[in-house]
Amino acid sequence: MTIDITITEVAARDGLQNETHPVSTEQKIELIGRIAKAGMKRFEVTSFVSPRAVPALADAEEVVKGLPERDRLIVEGLVPNMRGAERAAALKLDEWVCFASASESHSQANSNTSTEEALGRLQPVIDLARQEGVTPVGAIATSFGCPFEGDVPVARVVDVARRMTDMGVETIKLGDTIGTAWPSRVRELVQAIRATLPKTTIVLHFHNTRGMSLANVLTGIAEGVDRYESALGGVGGCPFAPGATGNVPTEDLVHFLHLEGNRTGLDMDGLIKAGHWFETVLERKLPAHLLRAKPVGVTTDLSEMKRATG
Amino acid sequence: MTIDITITEVAARDGLQNETHPVSTEQKIELIGRIAKAGMKRFEVTSFVSPRAVPALADAEEVVKGLPERDRLIVEGLVPNMRGAERAAALKLDEWVCFASASESHSQANSNTSTEEALGRLQPVIDLARQEGVTPVGAIATSFGCPFEGDVPVARVVDVARRMTDMGVETIKLGDTIGTAWPSRVRELVQAIRATLPKTTIVLHFHNTRGMSLANVLTGIAEGVDRYESALGGVGGCPFAPGATGNVPTEDLVHFLHLEGNRTGLDMDGLIKAGHWFETVLERKLPAHLLRAKPVGVTTDLSEMKRATG
Repeated sequence: MTIDITITEVAARDGLQNETHPVSTEQKIELIGRIAKAGMKRFEVTSFVSPRAVPALADAEEVVKGLPERDRLIVEGLVPNMRGAERAAALKLDEWVCFASASESHSQANSNTSTEEALGRLQPVIDLARQEGVTPVGAIATSFGCPFEGDVPVARVVDVARRMTDMGVETIKLGDTIGTAWPSRVRELVQAIRATLPKTTIVLHFHNTRGMSLANVLTGIAEGVDRYESALGGVGGCPFAPGATGNVPTEDLVHFLHLEGNRTGLDMDGLIKAGHWFETVLERKLPAHLLRAKPVGVTTDLSEMKRATG
Repeated sequence: MTIDITITEVAARDGLQNETHPVSTEQKIELIGRIAKAGMKRFEVTSFVSPRAVPALADAEEVVKGLPERDRLIVEGLVPNMRGAERAAALKLDEWVCFASASESHSQANSNTSTEEALGRLQPVIDLARQEGVTPVGAIATSFGCPFEGDVPVARVVDVARRMTDMGVETIKLGDTIGTAWPSRVRELVQAIRATLPKTTIVLHFHNTRGMSLANVLTGIAEGVDRYESALGGVGGCPFAPGATGNVPTEDLVHFLHLEGNRTGLDMDGLIKAGHWFETVLERKLPAHLLRAKPVGVTTDLSEMKRATG
């Protein structure tokens, strides 16, 4: 079964929010431009959090203003509160991503607020988005597990999704914040949300921290989910999961989706080239497998090989 | 659906055959002993290839003779030809693994022989195994793709499996030698072999070169395959796929299988400890994700975390 998959590229936001290597505004804009050139249309480009909390994304306005071929892109920005919303409102974004953690402890550690308070703060942001002609989107962090509490019950995530939907959100991103999702839980949660909120669009956001991301994508596709998020090179991660690899790499995700017969509209070679360029920016090797290994079907010349190993 | 999965640990053979860091015979024996202590019963311990061709496994006899708790283990050895078979016959192995490459070019590059010639040489080895009271097993390299030819047709692999079965082999290992397997091909090949050889036991051997190994395992399990191979730490790889990661790591495989509700009889903590010890032997970080990230369900103490990041 071939389906059309839409990917949101999140390297510039989730990928860089905890990045310690300096990345200039120009480099962020170039990053987005290079990925767009490979056919990517949707980007989460930055976060309108306090620059004090996330210094790496302090240039949110400049990044949005500098976007190349703005009209061809669907531009999402993370908007955590009304202060962020007022900053975002001065720019022309297509979607505001409003989030809450399903886990109480993660909500406290990440946002210094309870899940209940975080949800309470979303309504005015969502209302302002509507006024501004921007689509509000909900994102649920720790949808598949919390670093402090462990299991996050499916019913809890469904409840947060329902609350967001009641506020007027039609799309929900399920964030596997620390890479603990596994296939049967993905199936269970997707089915539970579908049963409660049949009209809601589900976006799956996996991290590859324990190597399970593509197995989770396979399960999402079997459940008919056609929207995923990924980060070029597999950058990112969670400050509460030190040493662990980050988001599912865009290169690996697209390679996998194409082999499985799905369409993404993306050019594999272009993504790999962008990934290698990104490695020069961050001055280190990135976790994407496709930055080390050739795509399936690209062969090695035997005589070249013999010279190399002989 | 909970099923009992049997894993064959191949670090000492597939994992070390191309290893450039010196590993002593004592260390190989300790490696197997530590993994056995975590509950592993089946091991591919070495290869009876020419010591000139694979110097890293020149100590095949010493490894087998030194195995701890020999009676508790099912010991497999790779036996490429009659010369190897004669060496193996002097020892007490449980199974001899006889292999051929499904791809002509890989057969030439790896064994300096055609697939046809390689198959022709198997019969006397299989006959000798029988005489010696040893179980002969077939292994098909490049079952899911060749570094030089690209695609390896399903019909070709089925044909090699049928030839091996005709020679008296009841178990066939499908080797994803260069990590090019993807789920729908796994399903297709498993179903095709089942249709032709319904009595044959299938063992799936994946590499994680392109991050797809656990998605492939998920598919294998959906098809009812209950035998897999893996290597502690994710060591190994292929000399024809430089820079690429190796076998699916035992730590990652077992972690995944347990989350999905399967039984392996293996102790996750014990495997992780063995993996960290293996890193000290090889003096480098190994690719297994579970050597960096905690198993799902093992939580971090929030107050500890605040001190660490504060």
